[in-house]
Amino acid sequence: YLSVLALCSLGSMCILFTIYWMRYWHGGFAWDGSILMFNWHPVLMVTGMVVLYSAASLVYRLPQSWVGPRLPWKSGHAAMHLLAFLLTVLGLHAVFEFHNHAKIPNLYSLHSWLGITTVFLFACQWFLGFSVFLLPWASMWLRSLLKPIHVFFGASILSLAIASVISGINEKLFFSLKNGTKSYSNLPSEAVFANCAGMLVVVFGLLVLYILLA
Amino acid sequence: YLSVLALCSLGSMCILFTIYWMRYWHGGFAWDGSILMFNWHPVLMVTGMVVLYSAASLVYRLPQSWVGPRLPWKSGHAAMHLLAFLLTVLGLHAVFEFHNHAKIPNLYSLHSWLGITTVFLFACQWFLGFSVFLLPWASMWLRSLLKPIHVFFGASILSLAIASVISGINEKLFFSLKNGTKSYSNLPSEAVFANCAGMLVVVFGLLVLYILLA
Ligand code: HEM
Ligand code: HEM
Ligand code: HEM
Ligand code: HEM
Ligand SMILES: O=C1O[C@H]([C@@H](O)CO)C(O)=C1O
Repeated sequence: YLSVLALCSLGSMCILFTIYWMRYWHGGFAWDGSILMFNWHPVLMVTGMVVLYSAASLVYRLPQSWVGPRLPWKSGHAAMHLLAFLLTVLGLHAVFEFHNHAKIPNLYSLHSWLGITTVFLFACQWFLGFSVFLLPWASMWLRSLLKPIHVFFGASILSLAIASVISGINEKLFFSLKNGTKSYSNLPSEAVFANCAGMLVVVFGLLVLYILLA
Repeated sequence: YLSVLALCSLGSMCILFTIYWMRYWHGGFAWDGSILMFNWHPVLMVTGMVVLYSAASLVYRLPQSWVGPRLPWKSGHAAMHLLAFLLTVLGLHAVFEFHNHAKIPNLYSLHSWLGITTVFLFACQWFLGFSVFLLPWASMWLRSLLKPIHVFFGASILSLAIASVISGINEKLFFSLKNGTKSYSNLPSEAVFANCAGMLVVVFGLLVLYILLA
């Protein structure tokens, strides 16, 4: 129970740090194709693909889920992952719209290649999980065969999401801190703050993976 | 045995791609504090912290290690990790020397914060592994208590190394492809090549983690 508390507060901190970074140093949010629309991208990716994704994956680690009927827990797990996926898609939409409006090509950076691969795997995982574990047709044998694969890919997708977040924060800082005393290499306060946000996401992710795999 | 072959060739491809990238587009290697000294950084990090590190970690997955005396396998595991660590330190030395000569501050980027944390954990893992599993004083009880932690941290360090490699390749491409038709967003051949190198490292890393944890 203590670890649930620790995890919840770490997860909220990851989200709050990202929101504060975007509000305080980048002018806040909008949904109009401008650079303010881009600002939704980091927030929605961290919220959807890291924090909610982790919460959804850890549902079966709650002792309450080990007794009583399984169906409500399964539906909860699937629904939370669906919500996480929707936020992720909104987060991608925000950056694609911004690129289209600003006439910046899509999908050129390694960050975006890794990111889009991660989201694609997330979609596959959802459909496979849904059709095998929630729909009633699959045999116990098939389910127990697929379960370790389901868990391994779940953990891998989270690791790739963390790598995406790190490369994303890193490149955003190189973009926006370019010259003078505000250059990234002089570590202005924005750089320290956003680096800390990135390290927080790493600590959160490792903790989740530990609880998931240990 | 087929998977050993697949893994070896994937690992070599990761190293060869990095070397080719640095030779063909960045003028090759030197050890003199210039930008050519920097070029050792990606090569040594991929070779040491990803490929050799993985090979060393997978030693106990070879069926040959399951029969006969354990000591030679243990020493091999420890020695390979020591070699991987030495290459890693050389790789860090290359970039720090370059920064000092070019009067670029050290340790400002999120890439470098994550990277140095990863190398620090690697060092801790080595000393803990060495003192508990190789030196004779530790009881079976202590060893079996620490083993799952040892394996989990081994896998975590590899994941963090992959995130470091991705953010490193990404930022290097933003540095060196800045203007005109050679801008990163126009995907010149260097960008495609180095993005592919990054994706190769990801595929290699996931395969290793699968064999390690499955
Ligand atoms: C799981 C997390 C993430 C995923 C899957 C992801 C995915 C993507 C994708 C697919 C693009 C390409 C969009 C396009 O080309 O139109 C992109 C762009 C971008 N992302 Fe992320 N992102 C993630 C997190 C972040 C975070 C936390 C930041 C921090 C600021 C960030 C910063 C950027 C930037 C600056 C771009 C535009 C430049 C580029 O295309 O690389 N990303 N992201
Ligand atoms: C993309 C989304 C998904 C991810 C990342 C994911 C991830 C995970 C993870 C990490 C676990 C392991 C929990 C543990 O070991 O205790 C798990 C278990 C499970 N997942 Fe998913 N899951 C996803 C979607 C689904 C969907 C849509 C279903 C459909 C109901 C589903 C059904 C299950 C079941 C039944 C288990 C538990 C098996 C058991 O402990 O008996 N998953 N999932
Ligand atoms: C496990 C892998 C890696 C680790 C642990 C790592 C670690 C580091 C560290 C600690 C620094 C800071 C050096 C200083 O400030 O003097 C650094 C800098 C740098 N690294 Fe890496 N690195 C890794 C892989 C890579 C790769 C594959 C590239 C690809 C080109 C790369 C590109 C860079 C660049 C451009 C810098 C200088 C700018 C900066 O400080 O961020 N790194 N790296
Ligand atoms: C930083 C370096 C190290 C890393 C990343 C690392 C990683 C690993 C990994 C991933 C395994 C799991 C293999 C498996 O499950 O079959 C393992 C097992 C083991 N490691 Fe290490 N290791 C390191 C250093 C050491 C050192 C210095 C020793 C000292 C001898 C050591 C002793 C062992 C032993 C005895 C096992 C196997 C336990 C068993 O299967 O009974 N490790 N290590
Ligand atoms: O290590 C670095 O490399 C670049 C550039 O000098 C060459 O790519 C840069 O600004 C660094 O801090």
